[in-house]
Formats: sequence, C-alpha cells, structure tokens
Amino acid sequence: MPAESDFISWIRAQQSCDDLVRLPAGDDLAILDWPPNDLLLIGVDQVLDGVHFDSTLHSPRAIGRKVMNRNLSDCAAMGCLPVAAVGTVALPRHAGLDYAKELYLGLRDAADLYHCRLVGGDTGSWDGKLVLTVTILGSSGGIEPVTRKGARPGDDIYVTGPLGGSILGRHMTFEPRVHLGRRLATPGTVTAMIDISDGLSRDLGQICEQSKVGAVIDGDLVPIHDDVCRLPPDGLTPLEHALQDGEDYELLFSSSSSIGSDATRIGRIVAEPGMWLMRDGMSEPLRPMGWEHAL
Amino acid sequence: MPAESDFISWIRAQQSCDDLVRLPAGDDLAILDWPPNDLLLIGVDQVLDGVHFDSTLHSPRAIGRKVMNRNLSDCAAMGCLPVAAVGTVALPRHAGLDYAKELYLGLRDAADLYHCRLVGGDTGSWDGKLVLTVTILGSSGGIEPVTRKGARPGDDIYVTGPLGGSILGRHMTFEPRVHLGRRLATPGTVTAMIDISDGLSRDLGQICEQSKVGAVIDGDLVPIHDDVCRLPPDGLTPLEHALQDGEDYELLFSSSSSIGSDATRIGRIVAEPGMWLMRDGMSEPLRPMGWEHAL
Repeated sequence: MPAESDFISWIRAQQSCDDLVRLPAGDDLAILDWPPNDLLLIGVDQVLDGVHFDSTLHSPRAIGRKVMNRNLSDCAAMGCLPVAAVGTVALPRHAGLDYAKELYLGLRDAADLYHCRLVGGDTGSWDGKLVLTVTILGSSGGIEPVTRKGARPGDDIYVTGPLGGSILGRHMTFEPRVHLGRRLATPGTVTAMIDISDGLSRDLGQICEQSKVGAVIDGDLVPIHDDVCRLPPDGLTPLEHALQDGEDYELLFSSSSSIGSDATRIGRIVAEPGMWLMRDGMSEPLRPMGWEHAL
Repeated sequence: MPAESDFISWIRAQQSCDDLVRLPAGDDLAILDWPPNDLLLIGVDQVLDGVHFDSTLHSPRAIGRKVMNRNLSDCAAMGCLPVAAVGTVALPRHAGLDYAKELYLGLRDAADLYHCRLVGGDTGSWDGKLVLTVTILGSSGGIEPVTRKGARPGDDIYVTGPLGGSILGRHMTFEPRVHLGRRLATPGTVTAMIDISDGLSRDLGQICEQSKVGAVIDGDLVPIHDDVCRLPPDGLTPLEHALQDGEDYELLFSSSSSIGSDATRIGRIVAEPGMWLMRDGMSEPLRPMGWEHAL
C-alpha cells in the first residue's frame, strides 16, 4: 500500500531553492529569506467536501486548484503578490497516491500561474471526508496593501465583473484577480477592497463596518452574470442573486478617483452607517445576505 | 443559532497590533512587518479526529493546545522563535460557539506561552468530523536554524527526554521544547535536529537520509519513559516501544561537541548509510518503524 512517505518523496523531488527559498519542503519547517523592504501578508483558507466542493463530482485537480485560487484571491483583494504557500490534506482512507498527487498538482497549477512557491505541507489519511487547506504568504512588493478599512464618504464603489450563479460551475473554475488587484492598488486611489466570496451584500457590509461608513448601491448598475438566467427558479430576482450569491471572487472596492475599464461603478460610499439599494428611484435597506457557516 | 460571524467578531475583539503585527486578523490577510535581518521559517500541521485525538475523550481546549504544540515543536526542532500563526477549524455541524471558543482558547493557551501571535484563520462547519490546522511562522532571531542535513560522521546522537508510551496521555499534554531547542542551537555545534513525532527510529532515519550518513544507537543508553511499563502487553519490549512509539515530541539531534545535562547521549553518527542497534555488545539493523499514514 502506498504511504505518506511515498507522497512526500514525490513532492520533495519537485522542490527547488531560489532567492526567497533557502530551504524548501522536507525539513521540520521551510526557510525563507524574506525581502527586507517588503511587508509580509498571511492568511489561510480551507475547503471541505460537501461544502466547498463535491468529491463525487469534482476532480482532485479541480479541488486543489480551487483551494489555492481562494487564497490567491485574498492576495488579489489586498493588492499584494502571492509568493509562497503551504497546504494540508486530510485524505479519506484508501484514496490512493494518484489521487493525492492530483490534489497537489491542482495546487501547483493554480500557484504556478502567479509564481507562488509551494514550500511545505502536511498529509494525513483518516476515515473522514476530504479537507484541504492552504496558507498563503504575500509580499507588498513596493505597493501599500489595500485593506477593508479605508473607504471614505464620496468614494465610488466598483466591482470587477458580473455576479451571481457561480454555483453552476464558476465557483470551481474562477480566475483569481491577482494581476488586476495589483494594478488597482498601484496608484493608491483604491481606498478599500475585498474579494466577493460570501456575496456582494455581505462583503460590502465588511467594508462598511471596518471603514465605519455606509453605502448606497444602484440596482440598475450591478452587473448580473448570464449564469443567473440559467439557475432554476427559486423566487429570487436576478438582482437578488447578484447581491447574495457567494463565490464570485470578483473584487469589490471603493475608490477616490475614477477607474477605467477594469471595473463597473455600482454605487457610492456615504457617511451614514448602513447599506441601501436604489431601485426605480426608490431607496430601500440592503441587508447583508449571503453565505455564512452556522456553528 | 450562532454563526461564523459571531465567532469571528469574538476573535477580532482579542486581536492587537505590535512591532510585528501591523494589521491583525479581520481583513483578507494579516499584515506583518518582518524583521529585516531574520530568516522566516514556515510549516503547517493538522490534527484529525480519530487519528491525532478523540473528540469523545479529549476536551476542545486540549485539542487546540495539541495542534499548536505540534507546530511549536517544529520550531523547537529548528531552533527558531515561534512568532505568529494562523489556523483553520472544520467544525462538526451544531458543535456550537462555546466549543469553537474553547478550541481557539486551546490554541491561545499554547501559543501565549511562547509569545506567538494568532493573526488569522478560517472557520467552517460541515457534516464531517473535527479537523484543525495551524500554520506557524518562526524567526531565526539571530541564530542559524538547525536542519536535518548537517549530521557528520563522528557526531554524537542525543535525545532530550525519555521515550515511549505517549499514547497513554502525553501525546495530548507534551510541552514543546522551544526554549531547549533554542538553547541547543545557540552555540552552532548541534549539526542536525528533529522532533520525535513519528518514532525515534523513523525520525533518526530522516536525519540519516538527509545528512547522507548512518547511525549506531546503543540500546542500553536509550531513555525509556515510565509510561512504557504501564502499557498493556503487546509483545514489544520496552526498548522497542522507545524506538518506535510516536508523539514523544522530544528533540533528537546530532552534535559535534558534548552537551551538558540537557540531553542523553544514545549513539553516534557513522559514515556508512544505514542504522544499527547495539545490544549486549552485538549489532543488528535498526529499521525505521513508527507511525506512518497509509494512502
């Protein structure tokens, strides 16, 4: 029977050193030479079978890609460069070495596109379902990171793409907006940014709460993804789907100056705390609806 | 029903900034100001219900402590300072907010002892069993990290405490040898080091393989933990338990000069690849036995 050590040997054979990586995966810890003038950004995200993917439907390669892309999307939302990552996998017993390799290759597929190195991990097998985590390290690389805190009354609110209906497939195949996030962060005029993972209204609520401001969204301006029209009827309008559906992984941000063709303006930051939706010239409260884990 | 956001709000309220932490948990990523002259060490470890702990026996506080301590032990094995960590938890549905808080407090209990900051995480609930991961960041803090690669023929082999029988309880309650690892690494005479998680013979095999050397262990010198005598009979000798049992989390290292009372000498590094056990003046092959996940 293949063992953890076979998987680890296979991974080690693919490791290499460079300016950043002094000692890659294979010891107790990897050793990195962090560039002295760069801020270090760190975060972690997990995916759970039956919640974020379905192992009976999705390939291990696609599952690996998704967890890495979720983390890369966090880098996009801060405007930083992804530079290194470590991951864990809890494998259902008897999943096999080839399945484990495909998960790893999924991580690598996604990471390699952004020159992000995989420098460590932990593998275990159990009589439970598949869990993957990735912890990502980003570097400011000369550009001040964009947080959720800086939105100011009068800023315009933008989104980088059409929203809603990701459940039909895009939640597995989205492209993290790493280059776009970096480009948006460069001039210093984007005041707050987040990636839409839990739904526009919920994630906008994060910016409002942390920036201590409010927001007015113009319902006519919110770009709705074609996928919304293909959803089975569920009583929600297309706009409600665009406002509530999660896992779009587009960037939602506020800016103190106008943005070119990279994003669509959908509203404005206001001083009064709260969120409102304008429709047909009428204003109504916009509640933070979207994905949340119950405990 | 309590939600993920209640847990996250509770965690955020406990976050603070300092010289290292410019922006703590609560945004897409935390932002750290890495000290310019310190190497960055990174690794990740997970614990799985039914493998590394038993949620029907062990308290959430103890489970949280264990996963953090496993990571702190990796820092010990490199001789570095643990400085920051992020974690994930996959919670069985309806585990509840109090249970989640206890897991977090377990992480904090262990981390606080070494001034290691918890700067981020991800929480999810699912119809699976409990999984926790911790990713740890260590700093070289002026001392060259000790890898598994530097053992040289003629070095003595040491272990920092008695081994075997951790399954009786110490696997949940061990103290990571962070301060001791740091003290051992300081003079630069410890040539290779690892923490014993998978069993002495298997972990010594890691040092031999990566240092491209062999080892001779003197069976009479291996310190055996009292717990071994309390194990139910299983056909193994006490020495075999000390050589094979996992999760002792003592440090195993080679040194080019003698060590004081911090550790017990148990053998010697030799040039010829392989491992041998001396007993009653006779030498026999020592096979790497111990814990390994089957895939």
